[in-house]
Amino acid sequence: MTKPLRLHPDRLFPSDPTTRDIARRLHATVRDLPIISPHGHTDPRWFAYDAPFANPAELLIVPDHYAFRMLMSQGVTLDELGVPTVDGSATESDPRVIWRRFAARYYLFRGTPTRMWMDWVFAEAFGIDVQLSADTADHYYDIIDAALKTDAFRPRALFDRYNIEVIATTEGPLDPLDHHRAIRASGWSGKVITAYRPDPVMDPDDPRFMANVQRFCAMTDEDAGSFAGYLRAHEKRRADFRAAGATSTDHGHPSAFTANLSREEVEALYAKVTTSPVTAREAELFRGHMLTEMARMSIEDGMVMQLHPGVHRSHNAAVLARFGKDKGGDIPIAGEFVQALKPLLDAYGNDPRLTLILFTLDEDVYARELAPLAGHYPALKLGPPWWFHDSPEGMRRFRERTTETAGFYNSVGFNDDTRAFLSIPARHDVARRMDCAWLAQLVAEHRLEEDEAFEVARALSYDLVKAAYKL
Amino acid sequence: MTKPLRLHPDRLFPSDPTTRDIARRLHATVRDLPIISPHGHTDPRWFAYDAPFANPAELLIVPDHYAFRMLMSQGVTLDELGVPTVDGSATESDPRVIWRRFAARYYLFRGTPTRMWMDWVFAEAFGIDVQLSADTADHYYDIIDAALKTDAFRPRALFDRYNIEVIATTEGPLDPLDHHRAIRASGWSGKVITAYRPDPVMDPDDPRFMANVQRFCAMTDEDAGSFAGYLRAHEKRRADFRAAGATSTDHGHPSAFTANLSREEVEALYAKVTTSPVTAREAELFRGHMLTEMARMSIEDGMVMQLHPGVHRSHNAAVLARFGKDKGGDIPIAGEFVQALKPLLDAYGNDPRLTLILFTLDEDVYARELAPLAGHYPALKLGPPWWFHDSPEGMRRFRERTTETAGFYNSVGFNDDTRAFLSIPARHDVARRMDCAWLAQLVAEHRLEEDEAFEVARALSYDLVKAAYKL
Amino acid sequence: MTKPLRLHPDRLFPSDPTTRDIARRLHATVRDLPIISPHGHTDPRWFAYDAPFANPAELLIVPDHYAFRMLMSQGVTLDELGVPTVDGSATESDPRVIWRRFAARYYLFRGTPTRMWMDWVFAEAFGIDVQLSADTADHYYDIIDAALKTDAFRPRALFDRYNIEVIATTEGPLDPLDHHRAIRASGWSGKVITAYRPDPVMDPDDPRFMANVQRFCAMTDEDAGSFAGYLRAHEKRRADFRAAGATSTDHGHPSAFTANLSREEVEALYAKVTTSPVTAREAELFRGHMLTEMARMSIEDGMVMQLHPGVHRSHNAAVLARFGKDKGGDIPIAGEFVQALKPLLDAYGNDPRLTLILFTLDEDVYARELAPLAGHYPALKLGPPWWFHDSPEGMRRFRERTTETAGFYNSVGFNDDTRAFLSIPARHDVARRMDCAWLAQLVAEHRLEEDEAFEVARALSYDLVKAAYKL
Repeated sequence: MTKPLRLHPDRLFPSDPTTRDIARRLHATVRDLPIISPHGHTDPRWFAYDAPFANPAELLIVPDHYAFRMLMSQGVTLDELGVPTVDGSATESDPRVIWRRFAARYYLFRGTPTRMWMDWVFAEAFGIDVQLSADTADHYYDIIDAALKTDAFRPRALFDRYNIEVIATTEGPLDPLDHHRAIRASGWSGKVITAYRPDPVMDPDDPRFMANVQRFCAMTDEDAGSFAGYLRAHEKRRADFRAAGATSTDHGHPSAFTANLSREEVEALYAKVTTSPVTAREAELFRGHMLTEMARMSIEDGMVMQLHPGVHRSHNAAVLARFGKDKGGDIPIAGEFVQALKPLLDAYGNDPRLTLILFTLDEDVYARELAPLAGHYPALKLGPPWWFHDSPEGMRRFRERTTETAGFYNSVGFNDDTRAFLSIPARHDVARRMDCAWLAQLVAEHRLEEDEAFEVARALSYDLVKAAYKL
Repeated sequence: MTKPLRLHPDRLFPSDPTTRDIARRLHATVRDLPIISPHGHTDPRWFAYDAPFANPAELLIVPDHYAFRMLMSQGVTLDELGVPTVDGSATESDPRVIWRRFAARYYLFRGTPTRMWMDWVFAEAFGIDVQLSADTADHYYDIIDAALKTDAFRPRALFDRYNIEVIATTEGPLDPLDHHRAIRASGWSGKVITAYRPDPVMDPDDPRFMANVQRFCAMTDEDAGSFAGYLRAHEKRRADFRAAGATSTDHGHPSAFTANLSREEVEALYAKVTTSPVTAREAELFRGHMLTEMARMSIEDGMVMQLHPGVHRSHNAAVLARFGKDKGGDIPIAGEFVQALKPLLDAYGNDPRLTLILFTLDEDVYARELAPLAGHYPALKLGPPWWFHDSPEGMRRFRERTTETAGFYNSVGFNDDTRAFLSIPARHDVARRMDCAWLAQLVAEHRLEEDEAFEVARALSYDLVKAAYKL
Repeated sequence: MTKPLRLHPDRLFPSDPTTRDIARRLHATVRDLPIISPHGHTDPRWFAYDAPFANPAELLIVPDHYAFRMLMSQGVTLDELGVPTVDGSATESDPRVIWRRFAARYYLFRGTPTRMWMDWVFAEAFGIDVQLSADTADHYYDIIDAALKTDAFRPRALFDRYNIEVIATTEGPLDPLDHHRAIRASGWSGKVITAYRPDPVMDPDDPRFMANVQRFCAMTDEDAGSFAGYLRAHEKRRADFRAAGATSTDHGHPSAFTANLSREEVEALYAKVTTSPVTAREAELFRGHMLTEMARMSIEDGMVMQLHPGVHRSHNAAVLARFGKDKGGDIPIAGEFVQALKPLLDAYGNDPRLTLILFTLDEDVYARELAPLAGHYPALKLGPPWWFHDSPEGMRRFRERTTETAGFYNSVGFNDDTRAFLSIPARHDVARRMDCAWLAQLVAEHRLEEDEAFEVARALSYDLVKAAYKL
């Protein structure tokens, strides 16, 4: 028996009729605003070459760590889901088989944002009107597979269909930015920009760090043997990235630790980390000092900084060995920002030219540390709820815990932060609905006037992100 | 003036009429499901010998640390409540006096789960229709005391009355399991099983550890002088426990720390901890390594592991000295699971034959650590909200913070975890109501279809616990 | 265009009609109870000399760190807001200019408690009926400025108008208490008392610590060269403060750390800290031991202790250098109470003569540590949500996370904790509304009977604070 699939127009709105009515009114004014996507991991090749997506499994399951981590937790192996291996040994290669495995266990996603995003994609993007289950797996597969063969489902068409005003991808410091150049050269009107993520040349714990620094300096004609040369290499690459549209940098450090070493100290440290094995403390010091250097460069060149700390990457040793990084085995750890950021803030925290956007997976710091910091320092802003908290409850907790101390105007709107293209409009839909739901509650409890809520709803959906990211 | 005591049929359901109606419909389908109680601390002698409970104070106050800790916090001494002392010195011996002290301060429990459980027991089990207060203390005492003298209030009758399908007690590794044998020998149909809690022979910080290990090996005819003998003693006792129905082990460690030492290292450590004073680090290493050994044995014999870390036991030195352990002075401490569990997970985390159920009193780790871990590793499941969080708000926070990342199906239903027999149905009642309230909210906000909610409600009340604990 | 300013009679009540009706009924019975303000930072000179407040900016912006920290975070400098400097160098001196800067950015406070308190002051105290904005800045300034020139807006008149039964200020151990003497000598009937905050003579990390101790002992004719003399100086000053009405002490330590050293150890430590530079550990040990001494003295003289730990004071180095302390740059840090308080609790935790009221800015400890501790130890009580958590969401989280384990009766009512005089009634208004909202939810969900809720509402608004602070 198949059940109907419906996207209820009131989804995510509170059930109380007064509050729901306010939420509806607010949402009607932001629902159709263009999407600004200032941080994410879509593939620039999609937009450069506009090739069709391969098949339903390749589009929706194989690259989605939210999807396969849940299946894995319930006993489906990554082999059975066709996740590619590090050594190239074979995994499941039949996309229909993969799809069926997913469909049969789709009930596992009840109550998760993945379920909400996927249903949006099924109903809204593909027009499917029955729920996904073992019984409807093939029906789904056939519809999606057929759609993907049409021009309407090529990346650029979807970009237009979903009213994306601008989207940022994320590239490493060694990336030649060819795809971004190809996008511009193509004459296509879509605005796709890059962002500068220099982790591979800033993290001495990366096994390829020394080689990366050599390559980094070689591609910029700088001397890898001197810290001054290394800094100039950053400046040159930042300029390259800005030429490819970048307005931001991004930093995925193990913690928010910063340092501000003397020139003498950092030169000695640079010499050490680029030539010999380092201790954990030396690696941390180098990363921490480089965040402060990045802040300085941001003040000079105007790029917005983003800091994403606090993840134990690739926690599952067996998964890392067979399938590599980013395979659903990243686990958050406790965070600390007050001590950690002080060196950088002592140097640049009061400079209005700096914007440093903070993210966390440790919600405990929202009210305790992040909102008090962002509600004081001119340079700090609060990034939206991130990753595991890009969800209805995560968004609710973010607003409940940050608004009273940091207000709305020290937050920066929404990031979809995804490599799953079709989930972009689905995620913005959730974010806009949850923000309207929160504002509606404030209005219904007479903590905010309704006319103000309309202004704030627009700010959270559109204005703040444009301003914060300089888009 | 006496006030009526009522158990409102809509208790714990949201007030919003739409959501309440959904909650009612869901609850009607799970209200009468049998109780599965896979983890608790009832006394097997109750079921073996079916003797009547002594009196109202002995049944409801003297053994209930929730009850006397609150009274103590407001100035009533444990002496005045008849709590037995370590040295046998006298405390209050008149159960009616104890009862009156409790009754006069029953208002202190407003807003607590103890109040909710007690009212359920008063109204539902004893049919009392006025509220407990100083004025009604004797009325209560007389009714309850009289009831306890009837056959209907003997343990086995209550077991049947409350539709308990299976209940697990918890025994230490030195327990002869005589009472469980007596239950089976009695021919009574009730299913009462044990669980293996080897803390006394796994924790070198226990003052009786060395003596316990000697006795443990003696009772299994194994050589306490070798680690191999000690491991075989575990294997034999696990088999004994399984013969007494056990499907699970339980581990009450100070932290979730695990280790996976080489055989050489652990043999040296075993020799040290069983023969001489140990450092805190050695004790932790031994406990941590033994968790990994327990995981290995679980894979071999199929017993489910439960880990209950993170309590500072017997914090109140004066209470410990006069009254001993488990007297309301246990206080939670901050937890950490990501680093702590890695050695065990590296060894067995991907093995589908292992089930390791995690509990915490530090709610901060729900969203940050436990849900991400359980939503990835096949071996991990989330235990229900524990102890201080076995409460309406505790249950709400658990679902709000874990569902989006781990889903419903990586949780394992409810544990009552109690030594207060009559609170068992009261606690399951609260859990079923709160789960239905949460599901009703998801349905009312169009985050879940109502037909799915019925399936999930049943899973949370009955199916998941049977499956996870192999009952 | 100006918009009307309204204080909605249902503000902060839940929107659900059933729950709202209960909240209204509860609130009607506590709305007009006198204000008990047992902890705060009003200036005793206001009450001693009853001089008019200077102007709108001096009354409402320049001294309010909630106000100027938000403006600063959005790029307004403290110079532009007329905040006085350490070296006396000039900042903005025109109060109307300051007021206009605030008014133009009043939208930044949407969703914050500052907005709610300010609107209360504007509407209720000054009778203004349009919203504050750039357009209405001068209108506001003129109305408020004129009002402040009238007798009705002098401190004593406001004290009477807002039905303040008793208010405590906070003074340091070197304060001569002259203003409090002047209040009493004036014959005015208002009850204004002091509280003893000995941090300046208990914290060896304070740069003026040694000089402070010398002066402290000199003013009490005690020998600063001996620990016994130093303790007697405390005893004498505590007696002085009690003579000025004090019923409490207050301790603003970096952490909740306590110690209970032997007499020999503490004498050696005292000799060290009062004569030579100290290590961080020595300073902590001394502060920690002195908390235990304060507890002992409290048992002797009956003064209630308050502990406010866990703030990184003056995090912003540039703001500290130019503007000094208490300028919005204080940031909370993670807290730990279980280990930290054990030495003090081992000594005095079970003594019913001691009341130690605990505060925190780290909400994670509410459910994990503070509620379990306060729900067990006779000496411990829970202070209300503090500082950044003196807010609707902060109050909701406090009740949600503490009530189930500590009940209502281990909490102590509300503290306004403010130096902004007119915010006192505004803050009590928020607290009473939020407590009634929480109680209404419990009643609507049948977790509490309505007749009990009336008793609890009164207790939370009035009875508990009087009892806990012995007022």
